[in-house]
Amino acid sequence: MSAAPVDFYFEFSSPYGYIASALVDDLAGRIGREIRWRPFLLGPVFKATGSGPLVDIPMKGEYSRRDFGRSARFYGVRFAMPPKFPIGTVAAMRAFYWAQASDAGLAKRLAVALYNAYFVEGKDISESRTVVEVASALGIDASALEAGLADASLKERAKAEVDEAIARGVFGSPYFIVDGEPFWGCDRIPMLEAWVKRGGW
Amino acid sequence: MSAAPVDFYFEFSSPYGYIASALVDDLAGRIGREIRWRPFLLGPVFKATGSGPLVDIPMKGEYSRRDFGRSARFYGVRFAMPPKFPIGTVAAMRAFYWAQASDAGLAKRLAVALYNAYFVEGKDISESRTVVEVASALGIDASALEAGLADASLKERAKAEVDEAIARGVFGSPYFIVDGEPFWGCDRIPMLEAWVKRGGW
Repeated sequence: MSAAPVDFYFEFSSPYGYIASALVDDLAGRIGREIRWRPFLLGPVFKATGSGPLVDIPMKGEYSRRDFGRSARFYGVRFAMPPKFPIGTVAAMRAFYWAQASDAGLAKRLAVALYNAYFVEGKDISESRTVVEVASALGIDASALEAGLADASLKERAKAEVDEAIARGVFGSPYFIVDGEPFWGCDRIPMLEAWVKRGGW
Repeated sequence: MSAAPVDFYFEFSSPYGYIASALVDDLAGRIGREIRWRPFLLGPVFKATGSGPLVDIPMKGEYSRRDFGRSARFYGVRFAMPPKFPIGTVAAMRAFYWAQASDAGLAKRLAVALYNAYFVEGKDISESRTVVEVASALGIDASALEAGLADASLKERAKAEVDEAIARGVFGSPYFIVDGEPFWGCDRIPMLEAWVKRGGW
């Protein structure tokens, strides 16, 4: 039996989530664990924590705007600050879980494509039709996805994911949980790696 | 002429500031820069940012309580969660700047001793008399320090430090500024190091 996967929680509007998405394949190789991609929404988290988008927080907002691009370059990840930021990502998240219902590999490729559309090409993925366009480019049937996005059971499935994330204490993006241990932020990847290799401490 | 020092901002009630204090001597050696220890207060920052103590924030608070000790062990730093936390650290900060006026090396040793008193021995350094006791053990004259702590010019000096920190955008602890570039958090030390070595990117 293989060891438990790493839950990788991310929000499609999160620059640090995007950077992490470019790092997790290498991480998986180094620790010999599967990565389970789990998009969620920060909006409901902000309600629970009384917080809000990072860039709107005095002082921290200025720092973070400077830090997004600096961090991306540090990790060697392409990044351009999107013209519209932050954005609502319900459609992107729902499209991910729609794709995942039939093909987990396809869902991951869609997540990568959506992140690139937003954080490299500056496309507004808050729009359902942009999400569908990005999906179409991967060979996904546009009308099937459009129908899926309107489906009540998919909405329920996506909402259940967000509720579960909050119930597990996920308050930021990226957020990892492995063997019950939580790690928040790209800069915690080295600690996560050490934790798995040593079996905790 | 030697290169500019690294400003190391920290709050005496901050576990991550304490952990950083145990790491900065090695950092200084690796990057060939002097570290300028600059205690400040998070209270006025919280007023400016609309935030509050980390442990009081829903979800993030639980994570941080778990993370303090885990991070300390990761970095090989002794740590015991103090029974009283967080605390006001005006007296500790003022004592630091009082000592610094005559001897920068002594001020740093005092900072190390105060951090150890709080985060290893669990002493309540919010009390002036505890601060004076810790200072006395370093050979500092207790009555001279007591008189200094009551002195208006020292209060002004300490307040000016906090005001300057906020004006420079310091919103958390630890917070480093080197060559005009800000880095927040212990886990940004590797990025800071790379920044100095490469001259930015």
